[in-house]
Amino acid sequence: MQRYFAKGKDEDSFLLNDDDLYHIKTVMRMNEHDKIQVVYQDTVYLCCLENVKNHLKIYPEKELKTATESLPKVTLLIPLLKEQKMDFILQKATELGVDQIILIETERSIIKQKAEKNEKKLERWRRICKEASEQSYRINIPTILPVHRPNELSNLEGLKLICSTTEKQKNIRFLLNNHKSCDRINVVIGPEGGFSEKEEQLWNQMGFESVSLGNRIMRVETVPLYILSILNFYYME
Amino acid sequence: MQRYFAKGKDEDSFLLNDDDLYHIKTVMRMNEHDKIQVVYQDTVYLCCLENVKNHLKIYPEKELKTATESLPKVTLLIPLLKEQKMDFILQKATELGVDQIILIETERSIIKQKAEKNEKKLERWRRICKEASEQSYRINIPTILPVHRPNELSNLEGLKLICSTTEKQKNIRFLLNNHKSCDRINVVIGPEGGFSEKEEQLWNQMGFESVSLGNRIMRVETVPLYILSILNFYYME
Repeated sequence: MQRYFAKGKDEDSFLLNDDDLYHIKTVMRMNEHDKIQVVYQDTVYLCCLENVKNHLKIYPEKELKTATESLPKVTLLIPLLKEQKMDFILQKATELGVDQIILIETERSIIKQKAEKNEKKLERWRRICKEASEQSYRINIPTILPVHRPNELSNLEGLKLICSTTEKQKNIRFLLNNHKSCDRINVVIGPEGGFSEKEEQLWNQMGFESVSLGNRIMRVETVPLYILSILNFYYME
Repeated sequence: MQRYFAKGKDEDSFLLNDDDLYHIKTVMRMNEHDKIQVVYQDTVYLCCLENVKNHLKIYPEKELKTATESLPKVTLLIPLLKEQKMDFILQKATELGVDQIILIETERSIIKQKAEKNEKKLERWRRICKEASEQSYRINIPTILPVHRPNELSNLEGLKLICSTTEKQKNIRFLLNNHKSCDRINVVIGPEGGFSEKEEQLWNQMGFESVSLGNRIMRVETVPLYILSILNFYYME
């Protein structure tokens, strides 16, 4: 059954955005009394469609039980990457349960974003996360924050790590074994070519522990998936 | 430094295929005495280029030390998927260290491959795996076997599991904890829509244990990455 996130409620009927209305009427060609799932304020409702041909009404019929999120909440801190890689990471990270994505400035980022393009890109990325959340039956949509400098991020709470290409001793397995339970994990991922030594030290000074991810040489867009898969597995009940 | 797999050796010079020669001469525009890495018979050599403009010679200068593969060898058994998803899985699974990919027939596969197209597709897929192996500095290239029926695969050795959407009790964490060390793991992954009950039972009868991957709802192409990430992590030293 299709799932959509509601943007509000008008008396008894949920309000969806125009893309979703188009999807229901034109792509899925739904009919009178067809059912959909709607997420509203972290709750999932089984809903019935009425008046599909004109001014669609979406009435909740019952609240559906949903698994609560038991994992620690994961924030990924990633550099700006080329459009295709960015889209890929957003879609897959959403599937794998990321809670928040913060874009970061790094010395070796190839892509520099102009301020005026910022809002337009963010809007596009948020749409990708919303659609991936619907497809993977999440009850919330990951948040995306625009580009930050490292020193603007000193107040993040929880476990903090930075994926290092130079750290050889401490790997992610060792680190997680020292944090068998935690509420929030923040993971910094570098650009192609990695962080400069100075940059990594700056993150370290802000409390981010350098960890190795093992011996594999991965493309930059593979790293977030690798990390999220590991965290899903490690904190699986 | 660029890495290439040699297809053979002619006296002292390694032989590369035409794509690689084109890459060296035209894409990378390498010059006389430039260095590359060449993998030949599971060994990596630092090589020097000579006679680049005419009949290129690639002479080994020394053997490079390489990390040996300590993980269990992983065989993925996957249904035929649409081209883009297939390419994606092959590239990422290679990065994440897969040893062998066996295509399998499943009831709900959307894609049916005609025998005459088999060889052409396989050739294309093998090229993707070779290129991903070079990029991720592997010393071997995953092997790909054409479409098999489940009953043709009864002689696979090692730990055998099938990713189930109906198994609720036993998850992959539980299963791995009962197999802290093993030489080879075979993982069967279903198509969109999963396996039929009868199909899953057939795999079970052949010794494949059903496991849940947790609560996430993933696209089919995400599953192989998720599994390989977990195995890399679990057997990390």
